[in-house]
Amino acid sequence: MTTSGRFFVLEGIDGCGKSTQVTRLAEERNALATFEMGATELGSALRELILGSGQAPVPMAEALLIASDRAQHMALVVEPALLRGQDVISDRHAASTIAYQGYGRGLAMEDLLILIDLATAGRTPDLTILLDIPVTESLARRGSAPDRMEQEDMAFFERVRAGYLAQAAADPVGWIVVDATSPLDVVAAAIDNAIAERGLA
Amino acid sequence: MTTSGRFFVLEGIDGCGKSTQVTRLAEERNALATFEMGATELGSALRELILGSGQAPVPMAEALLIASDRAQHMALVVEPALLRGQDVISDRHAASTIAYQGYGRGLAMEDLLILIDLATAGRTPDLTILLDIPVTESLARRGSAPDRMEQEDMAFFERVRAGYLAQAAADPVGWIVVDATSPLDVVAAAIDNAIAERGLA
Repeated sequence: MTTSGRFFVLEGIDGCGKSTQVTRLAEERNALATFEMGATELGSALRELILGSGQAPVPMAEALLIASDRAQHMALVVEPALLRGQDVISDRHAASTIAYQGYGRGLAMEDLLILIDLATAGRTPDLTILLDIPVTESLARRGSAPDRMEQEDMAFFERVRAGYLAQAAADPVGWIVVDATSPLDVVAAAIDNAIAERGLA
Repeated sequence: MTTSGRFFVLEGIDGCGKSTQVTRLAEERNALATFEMGATELGSALRELILGSGQAPVPMAEALLIASDRAQHMALVVEPALLRGQDVISDRHAASTIAYQGYGRGLAMEDLLILIDLATAGRTPDLTILLDIPVTESLARRGSAPDRMEQEDMAFFERVRAGYLAQAAADPVGWIVVDATSPLDVVAAAIDNAIAERGLA
């Protein structure tokens, strides 16, 4: 009998505290902490092409680059860990594509779902944890050198946030929404409770 | 009434003489000569990631990068030229994906057709011209510093050549196969005749 690791994803707009909770959860579970975009050597170069200062990809080219980063990440990082029985905690994954390229940029959801399926070979997270904060809070927590995505306007991030909340509402078992304006220990407890409630602890 | 330019594509394995015929045909028709992969600033960086010496993309990541290069190329180079009424002659296009990633690497054709459709927004060539040469001839004509694709073995290129011939056989109106071991002027005349016969001159 093979035992696969569990696949947890943290999602949310910038400044919601994803990386803090990824690190904490990975330590707690002796899991592999990883992220999209850019966790592989190829992906790191792709992240720079997507977010850096060179020629901007048109929206479909951007979605395809993100899918390529994901395909490499799944094949070389996520699947090998899951197959050896280790849990994986990823800072962003497929739900970011629906939120940013779908709700944010307006690409067709059916096209994005196909790209996600090609990039993941059908693997889906055991639980996606949305750390929800207001857009004004995200902007206030942001660093001083915004990348290409961070340079989008407030209406863009409102659409992205709404896109996350819509995905969570559509799948209440596969998602948990946590108010990430709460203190860190309250956020951590909400995450741990959600995992325990679903029998994933 | 709008008049769109015509879209011609030259295909074939390396050493078949595509670039010579692209240049000649573009001069003859006052057309835009272009190529895949790498004709845009973004695409040039993607070409290096695909063919260079860094971490190799897994097959699906490779197919997604090629589709991204194509989406950028179509949106920023090919479509603007066609819309202003100029003909476009491209050295490689979608048929290379079917030949190399499908027949060569063994990715599912249905997945590749979806990626082609996303990258091209449904635009198809008016004529694809296959310059066919034996694989032994291709290898003999090759330069001394093979890129990642050129490092594949002979069986790979035999599958790629067969993949081109199968596409041409399946669409005798949209394709013409030219024996590219013939003298240059014979190849040129065969191309020009095929274009004239289809009312595309």
